[in-house]
Amino acid sequence: MSLNHLIDLADMDREEVSALVGLAGWLRTSPQPQALAGKILGLVFFNPSLRTLASTQAGMARLGGTSFVITPGQGTWQLESRLGVRMDGACAEHVREGLPVLASFCDVLGIRSFAAGVDLARDLADADFRAMASVIPTPLVNLESAIAHPMQGLADWRTLDDLGIAPRSRFVLSWVTHPRALPLAVPATTVHMAALRGHEVVVLRPDGYALPPEVMDRARVAAAASGGSVSETSDRQAALAGASVVYAKEWGSPVHYGQPAAEAALRATLDDWQVDETWFAGARADCRFMHCLPVRRNVAVADAVLDGTRSVVLAEANNRLWTQMAVLYRLLRG
Amino acid sequence: MSLNHLIDLADMDREEVSALVGLAGWLRTSPQPQALAGKILGLVFFNPSLRTLASTQAGMARLGGTSFVITPGQGTWQLESRLGVRMDGACAEHVREGLPVLASFCDVLGIRSFAAGVDLARDLADADFRAMASVIPTPLVNLESAIAHPMQGLADWRTLDDLGIAPRSRFVLSWVTHPRALPLAVPATTVHMAALRGHEVVVLRPDGYALPPEVMDRARVAAAASGGSVSETSDRQAALAGASVVYAKEWGSPVHYGQPAAEAALRATLDDWQVDETWFAGARADCRFMHCLPVRRNVAVADAVLDGTRSVVLAEANNRLWTQMAVLYRLLRG
Amino acid sequence: MSLNHLIDLADMDREEVSALVGLAGWLRTSPQPQALAGKILGLVFFNPSLRTLASTQAGMARLGGTSFVITPGQGTWQLESRLGVRMDGACAEHVREGLPVLASFCDVLGIRSFAAGVDLARDLADADFRAMASVIPTPLVNLESAIAHPMQGLADWRTLDDLGIAPRSRFVLSWVTHPRALPLAVPATTVHMAALRGHEVVVLRPDGYALPPEVMDRARVAAAASGGSVSETSDRQAALAGASVVYAKEWGSPVHYGQPAAEAALRATLDDWQVDETWFAGARADCRFMHCLPVRRNVAVADAVLDGTRSVVLAEANNRLWTQMAVLYRLLRG
Repeated sequence: MSLNHLIDLADMDREEVSALVGLAGWLRTSPQPQALAGKILGLVFFNPSLRTLASTQAGMARLGGTSFVITPGQGTWQLESRLGVRMDGACAEHVREGLPVLASFCDVLGIRSFAAGVDLARDLADADFRAMASVIPTPLVNLESAIAHPMQGLADWRTLDDLGIAPRSRFVLSWVTHPRALPLAVPATTVHMAALRGHEVVVLRPDGYALPPEVMDRARVAAAASGGSVSETSDRQAALAGASVVYAKEWGSPVHYGQPAAEAALRATLDDWQVDETWFAGARADCRFMHCLPVRRNVAVADAVLDGTRSVVLAEANNRLWTQMAVLYRLLRG
Repeated sequence: MSLNHLIDLADMDREEVSALVGLAGWLRTSPQPQALAGKILGLVFFNPSLRTLASTQAGMARLGGTSFVITPGQGTWQLESRLGVRMDGACAEHVREGLPVLASFCDVLGIRSFAAGVDLARDLADADFRAMASVIPTPLVNLESAIAHPMQGLADWRTLDDLGIAPRSRFVLSWVTHPRALPLAVPATTVHMAALRGHEVVVLRPDGYALPPEVMDRARVAAAASGGSVSETSDRQAALAGASVVYAKEWGSPVHYGQPAAEAALRATLDDWQVDETWFAGARADCRFMHCLPVRRNVAVADAVLDGTRSVVLAEANNRLWTQMAVLYRLLRG
Repeated sequence: MSLNHLIDLADMDREEVSALVGLAGWLRTSPQPQALAGKILGLVFFNPSLRTLASTQAGMARLGGTSFVITPGQGTWQLESRLGVRMDGACAEHVREGLPVLASFCDVLGIRSFAAGVDLARDLADADFRAMASVIPTPLVNLESAIAHPMQGLADWRTLDDLGIAPRSRFVLSWVTHPRALPLAVPATTVHMAALRGHEVVVLRPDGYALPPEVMDRARVAAAASGGSVSETSDRQAALAGASVVYAKEWGSPVHYGQPAAEAALRATLDDWQVDETWFAGARADCRFMHCLPVRRNVAVADAVLDGTRSVVLAEANNRLWTQMAVLYRLLRG
């Protein structure tokens, strides 16, 4: 949380994250209905949302504040983010004007802007989001950028705490399939969150879907400081043995980044990467199933798992509310 | 109002409806600006809205609460509602996750989800809406489903009370034409509301547009208990004789349900089903014109009627505000 | 501000405008967080918005009130505004019902409805907006109509006051190019605002882009009463000599109104109407650059000017907040 911008969990240390998660728990049991009275949250959604849109507005309201929503390309014109271009195309305004203007109307800005999905290095550096952040002088919350979804990571940590899942236990982040190549923000955040929490993190994925070394190396550094570990494998049985958590997530192959046809060809052979009850044969009996949602039923995960007792996806989603309230509270009240 | 879900006026008895209408009148004259302070209304619109969107948000604000809006397919991805399907199509999330998550962020949920218009029996049973309701543990308000629009029914009852229109008077629900086959929710609710209020209800419609027996039979039971009656006819002159109210509404032919071409062919001969001043020749001199809006001028009703002194459409619409406030007040304060 | 409708700065005299601008300054330094507690602003956007949407909602919230947003054609069906038509097309509802209904839910309505761009005389008379206003009994704020954008004019006046730019100084409104023919609302409002403030107003534009005589004549009357003047020229060097302000704006040729192809052909030769630093050679050293935003970088104005110290576009945009709060405060508290 450099300055007053919360962009990536990887910018924070274990104590900062843990304190936010603790604050979320306190706000859940100790309502503070006037804490942010008179404060305004501006929300900018370059991409669709369900949980984030609803929970940030509801969270702000529960603290006494209000919010407004801007959706470029829908109700608001499209915004340009490239520098130096002649703007004679579809975009009527540049983020260099649009975002500072919106920031000047409110007390804190939240922005969702998914990966462009063309240049892996650029997306790994979160170059577009950080360029936008550089023109925003006010507090800023990342509501999912090219490579980071810190609000999801905080909610998942809160959920692991709520469930009493021990830091040293095995946390398996498993790739699952999807009709399209999805961004890396959630898997990158999840592996980092679990490493920072001190888990024995195993990234289970088919060949061609290894997370980029930048993501894995950063997570290993976090794990080392927290007493955890980070490994990866394509051996499902080995990965799942003794697991306390299976966290399923869809993402596109980094090998074919920005090449949808090649990516789809590789993925076409991987339909069996759908979590069903057989996956839990070697796991702990009380192994939990996690997913950030939205999830495609019977593609990424079978109905029986989602509707069964292992699934904690609704608890994760509900914790978005409390952890985001903690972030807003911290940014606006210090 | 079984449990804390208000889905259909037909689930309520006369006293319950009358009490809500009375509460609406009280809220109109006795502002309660802090009654729902800190409470949050979540709104989910699977279909477009003008009155409902504005009046629920305004009503919640007038009681001190706040609201957020989710629009699947626009700002939020499309939601799947079928059970057991492999979700490899356009829908990124299932209502079984999406709706409980949204409910967990707020104190009361309002949902609009029009008829699929394919399977009449399914729509008459309100199967899709009730499936959604089954996964929502919190208070729920139906903002128009396949077969019910209880908020409209309450507002219309409030309007009839305001105008001093006696329960035993003749209430004519007349079919009028429209460029498309519209759903049955409003006519089904209207005939039930008027029957429950004790009117001499006449459903006036051309051949092929009789309301389904399930709707008519249920209304007859309600009428019997309230001292009213329900009949139907295609004889315009007979229907309108002595009418105190002409309530115009467009709906598709149940005979050709889910068959747009056949329905359009039948409807093509019915352009004279447009209410104009000649319709009132045999009615009471003070006969009122009602419509739930939106209405297509000079298709369903002539300008002269809408702009004339008979029309109470703006009063009906305004009563949406007060009756919805009553529902929210009742659901959240008991 | 005839009655309680603020439609056009040209309806107000210098003292009324100046008082609103002063009230905006007072609200900026003296927060009134409960001034409009319990009040509701209804917003209707027939056209896209960024600043107006965010600043009206934020402004209402800063005064303790709330707001709702209706977007015809998106979330709400399209609204018809023509009188007497048979509504068998795309529009499901007429503004004669829709707008009074929305007004009845709230305390003040704000409407954005751009020029139809077909009939110049009709747009100059603001016929569509004034027809809508005629059915709205409650307070109304014009958020940009065919020919007027009073909220922009007030914010710009506030900005000129903030910068200490003297009323008699030279204010150059310059045409700049754009990929499309844009409406006349902002240039018409800007020339009037600057005239009313008492500037030596020069409208700089290429041949074919003279503002209509109705606009210029009205501004000249305002200038005469304020001690200013209004002239026009296509001579850039002459116009800019000694300028204290260059206010850039895109608009379509009134000569080819409603004729996009002919307009585009004329405009195709005018790419050098892009403000860059050379424009300021003969201006005062402290000459400011103004633009209402959104602006297309390197089409209407060069990056170097927007990113340089002359540019006050962010200050103008921020003043939208305070001047709109002043308007809402005045309309709702007198």
